[in-house]
Amino acid sequence: MNIDKIAEQIKIKKSFLCVGLDTDIQNIPVHLKGDEFPVYSFNKQIIDTTAKYSIAYKLNIAFYESIGYKGWIMLEKTVDYLKANHPDIFLIADAKRGDIGNTSKKYAQTFFETMNFDAITVNPYMGEDSVTPFLSYKDKTIILLALTSNKGSNDFQMIKDENGMRLFEHILYKSQKWADKNNIMYVIGATKPEMFQEIRKIIPEHFLLVPGVGAQGGDLGEVSKNGMNKDCGLIVNSSRAIIFADNTEKFAEVAGIEAKKVQEEMKSYLAF
Amino acid sequence: MNIDKIAEQIKIKKSFLCVGLDTDIQNIPVHLKGDEFPVYSFNKQIIDTTAKYSIAYKLNIAFYESIGYKGWIMLEKTVDYLKANHPDIFLIADAKRGDIGNTSKKYAQTFFETMNFDAITVNPYMGEDSVTPFLSYKDKTIILLALTSNKGSNDFQMIKDENGMRLFEHILYKSQKWADKNNIMYVIGATKPEMFQEIRKIIPEHFLLVPGVGAQGGDLGEVSKNGMNKDCGLIVNSSRAIIFADNTEKFAEVAGIEAKKVQEEMKSYLAF
Repeated sequence: MNIDKIAEQIKIKKSFLCVGLDTDIQNIPVHLKGDEFPVYSFNKQIIDTTAKYSIAYKLNIAFYESIGYKGWIMLEKTVDYLKANHPDIFLIADAKRGDIGNTSKKYAQTFFETMNFDAITVNPYMGEDSVTPFLSYKDKTIILLALTSNKGSNDFQMIKDENGMRLFEHILYKSQKWADKNNIMYVIGATKPEMFQEIRKIIPEHFLLVPGVGAQGGDLGEVSKNGMNKDCGLIVNSSRAIIFADNTEKFAEVAGIEAKKVQEEMKSYLAF
Repeated sequence: MNIDKIAEQIKIKKSFLCVGLDTDIQNIPVHLKGDEFPVYSFNKQIIDTTAKYSIAYKLNIAFYESIGYKGWIMLEKTVDYLKANHPDIFLIADAKRGDIGNTSKKYAQTFFETMNFDAITVNPYMGEDSVTPFLSYKDKTIILLALTSNKGSNDFQMIKDENGMRLFEHILYKSQKWADKNNIMYVIGATKPEMFQEIRKIIPEHFLLVPGVGAQGGDLGEVSKNGMNKDCGLIVNSSRAIIFADNTEKFAEVAGIEAKKVQEEMKSYLAF
């Protein structure tokens, strides 16, 4: 899926919401726990009520892996359900992979061939040859970690070199040579809204995946004001605040209401 | 498994070899391809012939994930087989995970609870709170990426700050405060043997996991000369050069012979 398609969906839906399916099996409603594939049952219902308010879904792979092989079955089933029913939705594997070339190639195969994700989050620490195997798929996107939403982002990402350039800025500059804006996006956490203006000077046209709104405390208005470009250029993720807003039999309905609230706020920030 | 146990095994086996089970299903011998769990069949035979020459196994998770849920079944079966038959062997998940706290916690659960690995490789880019959830297991070890074996390690890991300290050195210094040498090791690639003496000044006592010998061109003698400490302090990985040395029905036997060769060379470098 190219970024023109994403920009078009943002215009149609008046939303730049990504719903994060961080589906912790321990947190799903009791009445689903006896299902053969409980995480899939949960995801399916959440998707049914939130899809009209969102342009992307982000599946946090850790929550599926932790269940073992059955978690992978539920992951694959969720991907298939989304692709079959919502082909216009941008589907992100939040996997934060990255390794030497022959291994990154296998991770790319996992998420782009074995499963039909449109994008994967990639950790840049190991450099160019750990990232480029993901870029050999012309219709797929990598989302490179740059400035993350957690406290630990201050430990290494903000280290300045001799010329005052911070590590995450090195990553923004260097990685632009590896692919154009159609195949690369960046993770920029919502918890540092003041950084977006600086970041937009380096990457004015790229899309940014923004976690950290909701449970982590980031402010949607601030992010929108400082981070938007002419195509919107933002995909803002919310996970727990939407999917676990309720844990009764009405969980999916309530998630839909929460997603709609976020979409309405987003609509008010969009210029088109 | 604590590091005294690892040091003891090195003394008993006169080996600091880690066999890397980067079992690419496309490369296994033809006669195994019809098995129900071909990667497990392959691993089991490789383990049977190489275990007496090695003190650790490293399972590269990408090669299992890429097959989908069935890959995860074969991964779990391999872990169970190793734990049941070789309880003294140090078992590493080469997963290079790392994410915000609640997600890292799930990854830790995957590899330390759902599966019974002794250690996991962790990517430090997201900082302290992305790493510490793995450290809440007192009998488990994290192996933090510091200076990797690939060409791209020059892109960011070698960036110097205002005081000349490189990024990977920041990681070595800062992470020592997160855990003691019993729970933390570091990945240092064999392809930069000249760096080991500098690294040993910062972390004289920690164990290092050293990839890059064999197919990637690192030199075992140079690594041993520059990187050893009084406990040996090295776990040197070899994957393709051992497990894919032959692809006939004799593959396991040949792998055993290759592992023995490496063990004999290692023995000549050990002082005890």
